[in-house]
Amino acid sequence: MPRQLTMNRAVVLLSGGLDSATTLYAAKEKGYECSCITFDYGQRHRREIASAKKIAKLSGCDIHVQKIAFPWKGSSLLDESKRIRETHHTQKGVIPLTYVSGRNIVFLSLALSYAEVVHARAIFIGANVMDYSGYPDCRPEFLQSFEAMAASGTKCGVEGKKIKIVAPLVRKTKADIVRLAVKLGVPIKHTWSCYEGKRRPCGKCDSCYYRAHGFKEAGVVDPALFT
Amino acid sequence: MPRQLTMNRAVVLLSGGLDSATTLYAAKEKGYECSCITFDYGQRHRREIASAKKIAKLSGCDIHVQKIAFPWKGSSLLDESKRIRETHHTQKGVIPLTYVSGRNIVFLSLALSYAEVVHARAIFIGANVMDYSGYPDCRPEFLQSFEAMAASGTKCGVEGKKIKIVAPLVRKTKADIVRLAVKLGVPIKHTWSCYEGKRRPCGKCDSCYYRAHGFKEAGVVDPALFT
Repeated sequence: MPRQLTMNRAVVLLSGGLDSATTLYAAKEKGYECSCITFDYGQRHRREIASAKKIAKLSGCDIHVQKIAFPWKGSSLLDESKRIRETHHTQKGVIPLTYVSGRNIVFLSLALSYAEVVHARAIFIGANVMDYSGYPDCRPEFLQSFEAMAASGTKCGVEGKKIKIVAPLVRKTKADIVRLAVKLGVPIKHTWSCYEGKRRPCGKCDSCYYRAHGFKEAGVVDPALFT
Repeated sequence: MPRQLTMNRAVVLLSGGLDSATTLYAAKEKGYECSCITFDYGQRHRREIASAKKIAKLSGCDIHVQKIAFPWKGSSLLDESKRIRETHHTQKGVIPLTYVSGRNIVFLSLALSYAEVVHARAIFIGANVMDYSGYPDCRPEFLQSFEAMAASGTKCGVEGKKIKIVAPLVRKTKADIVRLAVKLGVPIKHTWSCYEGKRRPCGKCDSCYYRAHGFKEAGVVDPALFT
């Protein structure tokens, strides 16, 4: 937990993947003093938490690991008895089995509570709707709706000090995100995207697919493949 | 976790206080099959969880106790080094020190995730703006805003199966709530309202104040005083 309050603080949702790491560096570039929050929510790719911690450390930001169970499961990301669907990226318009009900709503709600207490003015999230899995809680209309709800349901909001929800990558392609990550000096080799969470990225899940696609299109070799 | 899915399921936020218990019985009267959720969030009146469990059992409903930390605190309800403010009920228009940043937002978000997985159509909450402590996240405009955000950020919402946020007590006075609780057969003596969470209600905090006021105005003796 940060001790000092500044006028320009942001809470950053840092999963440890490429998008959230790039979002953190984008927030820092905008001059925000960032406090990161990451979630230990029973995900099978729990190893992303170690990536988040490493990236926060390298960026000089504090990080809080928030435990939060989704015991009702309902997602292949939370249930090892289910298979991660490997072919979703060919089925546009279908929300895949990896969808976790209310995940970003819960994560943003906790980030909001944290942000209000530390007097942060913004919450940064790496949501993206270009090369993504079709999750409803990544769309700009959802993020706007969350911001309005947050203004209505918090003390700071009703007092006119609204907390902004900022998604700097929301309309970028994965290739653009790769280029931005390189430009901002994101420690890409420490990011983790694969849903399977094994020793090496599986190369088959949606997350691996979009990542590989982005690096290829940007003409950049993914340094995480050589760690 | 409930095993059977019904067409008329609701998730009920049951804190163990008078309002949430009455809300549960109101949901049951409307024909909903209810699954309760209660939160262990570091509150000093943690004993309300035992009340919630007892009330759920008496009502024949299942209950899930969800652990969720607010490690950033920022509220006298979460921080035993702070005093519960005893005189707020005389200061209308001031949000008191017992305000927990984003509490109902976090609770509703988790209830929403649960509700979507068990195919519930509604979430019931005992929010009230008549005899209350001025919390922004109890107001009807907030609840409407949450419902809209939930429709935008969930799979069921974008597929047109919106989950309703229902607050049957929102405009009732505490005396009306007492009368309704009596009428619906709520096991009032098992409810717990006091913020202090000691062996007996303190009789001084906002919650005790509003409760005593409601019973007096309704002309009903509070059975919890004799347990």
